[in-house]
Amino acid sequence: MKARVYVTLKRGVLDPQGKTVCASLHQLGYREVTDVRVGKFMDITLGGLPRREAEQRLKAMCEKLLANTVIEDYRFEIYEE
Amino acid sequence: MKARVYVTLKRGVLDPQGKTVCASLHQLGYREVTDVRVGKFMDITLGGLPRREAEQRLKAMCEKLLANTVIEDYRFEIYEE
Repeated sequence: MKARVYVTLKRGVLDPQGKTVCASLHQLGYREVTDVRVGKFMDITLGGLPRREAEQRLKAMCEKLLANTVIEDYRFEIYEE
Repeated sequence: MKARVYVTLKRGVLDPQGKTVCASLHQLGYREVTDVRVGKFMDITLGGLPRREAEQRLKAMCEKLLANTVIEDYRFEIYEE
């Protein structure tokens, strides 16, 4: 079983990395770019759990480690390989 | 118009960040996790280009700046807001 976890900055939280990418794209001539926001994702391989339990445990992993829920949102999708 | 660009390490390239996350999940008791790979994505807002041209320019942005194509793969999807 695999899961993909997406972590993004909450709306309204400043994203200096995205601003830097945006400025660099402008310098390269891509003036049509008006905003960039950067996020990360994690592809997690999980063994031997029923789907329902896997969902609960993934939620806990996100809350405890994978996302900083003060400033970040997360979501995940589970799929079979 | 918006685009989401996904950047991942190529298959076979070591992912120390993923390994660290995996080890931390084990320490927290999530022994069912067997592998973690970390990637990033960028949500890009683009103004005033036909879709076909936007695709070509996004491809060039990825090759020039957004991905290190020696060790990273990229893909992107374009959608209307």
